[in-house]
Amino acid sequence: MSVEVKDISPVVISRLPRYYRYLGSLKDADVERISSKDLSDLMKVTASQIRQDFNLFGGFGQQGYGYNVSKLYEEIGKILGIDKIHDVIIIGAGHIGQALANYSNFENRGFKIVGIFDNDPNLIGTTIRDCKVLDASTVPDFLKDNNIDIAIITVPKNQAVAVADMLVHNNIKAIMNFAHVDLLVPDEVIVENVHLSDTLLKLSYRLRESIENV
Amino acid sequence: MSVEVKDISPVVISRLPRYYRYLGSLKDADVERISSKDLSDLMKVTASQIRQDFNLFGGFGQQGYGYNVSKLYEEIGKILGIDKIHDVIIIGAGHIGQALANYSNFENRGFKIVGIFDNDPNLIGTTIRDCKVLDASTVPDFLKDNNIDIAIITVPKNQAVAVADMLVHNNIKAIMNFAHVDLLVPDEVIVENVHLSDTLLKLSYRLRESIENV
Repeated sequence: MSVEVKDISPVVISRLPRYYRYLGSLKDADVERISSKDLSDLMKVTASQIRQDFNLFGGFGQQGYGYNVSKLYEEIGKILGIDKIHDVIIIGAGHIGQALANYSNFENRGFKIVGIFDNDPNLIGTTIRDCKVLDASTVPDFLKDNNIDIAIITVPKNQAVAVADMLVHNNIKAIMNFAHVDLLVPDEVIVENVHLSDTLLKLSYRLRESIENV
Repeated sequence: MSVEVKDISPVVISRLPRYYRYLGSLKDADVERISSKDLSDLMKVTASQIRQDFNLFGGFGQQGYGYNVSKLYEEIGKILGIDKIHDVIIIGAGHIGQALANYSNFENRGFKIVGIFDNDPNLIGTTIRDCKVLDASTVPDFLKDNNIDIAIITVPKNQAVAVADMLVHNNIKAIMNFAHVDLLVPDEVIVENVHLSDTLLKLSYRLRESIENV
């Protein structure tokens, strides 16, 4: 059975990583099947939402049996494009870049950090986890020699736009951007921004609102 | 003029941090006023959306003059609850915790890291930026002695739920959670999750989709 990904709405897609995480934990705990009701209790979403979401890509559920955890996990992995390993590079070996290079969850999810780059002579040549920090000027050559779709940008704000330009010119297709600035890239390049202070702002907004409503 | 925050929809609220960022940059560049048209070009959103959003909290725009950058920046800051400094603690002094403690953007936005805690004897006593890493068992006392609303959790997944419990018991009101697990906290406690590998999953989904559509 092949899944028609295009028919799945962005809202459902945004829920897939969380389903994938819960199913992965169940799989790790050797749970073979689970009912929408039990999954609902676990994830604190309604059983009807779970049934609706899973029906969209073929279901894998059976009345009185529940969902086959492994199959569902595998199928959602395919939809998410992680049925294969993605090689990833990090541009910026500062604190955030180092933290990400050390973040084992990325590799567990099929994202392998194969290169870390910086323009700081003090960082070039040092080793983070298994990766040597390379000179940022060698990124274009590295991209020519390796099959890499995804780059993570963790350089300071004032360098990020130029770095993104360079990556796009060297055929990077997707960017995870931690610099606190909006990148200017062609429409076909995929960008996900992680603006950490924006998240704190949302938190402080909700905090202010909750205090005023007391 | 006082802003009725409750009347602002969550969608508009989610756009405020980005407005705040752009207005901050304009302010830093000594721009005194800007038209919705110019702001629209800069931010790549429609001028009518900008006008609609800003009208919701009093506007500060004037026909033929544009928006007063400083006033608008200040007012959005108030709505976001950052017209005062928030003291913040970090639980977990590993790579991500260290990166966040070194992240100057937090302080620039009014979030001051006043304590970092860990249970690893190798980390306790070390200094990150200006903060000494303290024993995690002293968090309850620290919270009694200091006025702290916000905690950042950067401990491993298997410790995060217990850490959140402990924080809630000691009256933390808001949590920014980096552990790759959903926290179980009472409804009145505010949680923003930053699940970094979920962001990479979204990226790889969009990448897969774009390659299939070529």
